[in-house]
Amino acid sequence: MAKAVNIILVGFGKVGRSFLRNAHEKKDFIRKRYGLDLRFLSIFEIGGTLFSARSLDESLFLDISASDFPSSPFWRSGLELEDVLEKFQPGVLVECTPSNIKTGEPGLSHLLQALERGWNVSVANKGPLVFAFNELKHLAQKNRVALKFSGATAAALPTLDVGLYSLAGAEILRIEGILNGTTNYILTRMEEGIGYGDALREAQERGIAEADSRLDVEGWDTASKILLISNAVLEKGFVLSDVRVEGITDLPSGLALQVRKEGKSLKLLGKAFQEEGEFRIEVALSVINSSHPLFGVRGTNKGVTFFTDTMADITVTGGKSDPKGAAASLLKDIINIYRERAS
Amino acid sequence: MAKAVNIILVGFGKVGRSFLRNAHEKKDFIRKRYGLDLRFLSIFEIGGTLFSARSLDESLFLDISASDFPSSPFWRSGLELEDVLEKFQPGVLVECTPSNIKTGEPGLSHLLQALERGWNVSVANKGPLVFAFNELKHLAQKNRVALKFSGATAAALPTLDVGLYSLAGAEILRIEGILNGTTNYILTRMEEGIGYGDALREAQERGIAEADSRLDVEGWDTASKILLISNAVLEKGFVLSDVRVEGITDLPSGLALQVRKEGKSLKLLGKAFQEEGEFRIEVALSVINSSHPLFGVRGTNKGVTFFTDTMADITVTGGKSDPKGAAASLLKDIINIYRERAS
Repeated sequence: MAKAVNIILVGFGKVGRSFLRNAHEKKDFIRKRYGLDLRFLSIFEIGGTLFSARSLDESLFLDISASDFPSSPFWRSGLELEDVLEKFQPGVLVECTPSNIKTGEPGLSHLLQALERGWNVSVANKGPLVFAFNELKHLAQKNRVALKFSGATAAALPTLDVGLYSLAGAEILRIEGILNGTTNYILTRMEEGIGYGDALREAQERGIAEADSRLDVEGWDTASKILLISNAVLEKGFVLSDVRVEGITDLPSGLALQVRKEGKSLKLLGKAFQEEGEFRIEVALSVINSSHPLFGVRGTNKGVTFFTDTMADITVTGGKSDPKGAAASLLKDIINIYRERAS
Repeated sequence: MAKAVNIILVGFGKVGRSFLRNAHEKKDFIRKRYGLDLRFLSIFEIGGTLFSARSLDESLFLDISASDFPSSPFWRSGLELEDVLEKFQPGVLVECTPSNIKTGEPGLSHLLQALERGWNVSVANKGPLVFAFNELKHLAQKNRVALKFSGATAAALPTLDVGLYSLAGAEILRIEGILNGTTNYILTRMEEGIGYGDALREAQERGIAEADSRLDVEGWDTASKILLISNAVLEKGFVLSDVRVEGITDLPSGLALQVRKEGKSLKLLGKAFQEEGEFRIEVALSVINSSHPLFGVRGTNKGVTFFTDTMADITVTGGKSDPKGAAASLLKDIINIYRERAS
């Protein structure tokens, strides 16, 4: 007998849509392998929600976009998230609205409302976590629910799983990560002799970089991710202003090429390290040599290394880094929430 | 209030001793961070056990070896494992006796006795798992206890965690792993121009290879590990005779050097892959090129790549591969057993 898992999805952009499709395509597999029966109660977008008191048939919404919602017979323009959260047995709120690291909104309000009402959270949106990590964490602990955010810390690359689960009992001494695909792609191309401007344009043309890529190239995306990883696995309460942030925009032309000629590699690393007995975090353009475990992480690939006391260093690389990868991570977190609460 | 975790340790060789020391040194950290209070009830060796009804002060045994046990005031030569298992509230049996993949013993009997009596198991010894995986797994499921064996599948390298936890919800299409440090070291040295015999001798002199290294160089250690990983993450019931096994003993001199000159690398890979819709497993000497995620795994380093449907490929490398690494993995599994059963 499978256990019913109530899901409320908020945000139907690329990640939200990928999540719905993935959950739909994996329904039988999830039921068989993990004993979970995923039930979509509601899909929120700006102005209202798709809703059915008996759970939605998600297959109806695989090929439509948020702009089609108001013409659906399931559309309820007056219904608020709080109403749905209160009406049903708590399950998981899946948050996929756009990330805003300056205000955390609109995701922050959604997360607070869910956690306060005893719902678990699986979130792909970095904004609320970067803006209010401590508040959200304490609220989750107080209400004994899970706050999972694998999808917000490098999509399918399992940064948090390795740090929290695989390294249980070890003490983490240092973390270094290549956490942003756009900047790593640009640096790889620059090592191959392409100038910064051309490499950035190429990344944009190939759909790797956003049209507005400032958060990437100025280091803020990496800063957000190393902040979240550090807060989770080191149990710190860092805020964004604690991070020394360096980007790649001031990179002298020729430096990358020179580094490559010396058999080394230029990476934008998110780092957590100890200085005078205290952990600090920073984003720094770094020259690493071929013995560094992240040396081979090139192009849009990502990776993170945890340096520990009893397990030495453990590195994880790869993982789909597009909306589908983030969606797969959201699903993974849901499965692991119920696995950890199963027995 | 920390939760008491009763531990029975069986086998006081290198791994068992490292485990005791690690658990001792980490006691406060484990209590604070995970809310667990590790209590050693008994330490079994050939002929008897160290035992105290009020739990042992493990610090008394950090600097002695199994041969000193009979002169300890805590030594009970008549006490059997079954007696201790039955006398106490079930906790975790930590199994560290020498591995025998042909009979599974003596570990197999210990595991069966523990699982039958509702004890969880954390085991570093491959023997019983290779010999009787299905029986042990079913017994653990029947009695609703955990059978964890991270320490038996490449020490601190988190092969099982990534496959089972980080890839939850994804389907694994293929697995490839460099799972044996001795053979990878020899192959790396051969790529640098050293002959097989000299490289093997060097590995033995440096303490990397055992005096009897046949299980390593003939591929059986790799076969055992890919068998256990596949049985765990693919939920298969492979036995050792299902594995096509190739070693590195027949490697033509000069081949490794030639491969290296072509910018490629020679690896002994444990593989699980699909052939005509069925999974098969094998150990094969393989030429991989520089784009393969395991290309940079050289020397005694290890790594595994999972190729999946929704998360692309995810690779984990590194991790201490000596008895201390295995001991750290045993501790990790204990923590995760209680974490998964906590709420």
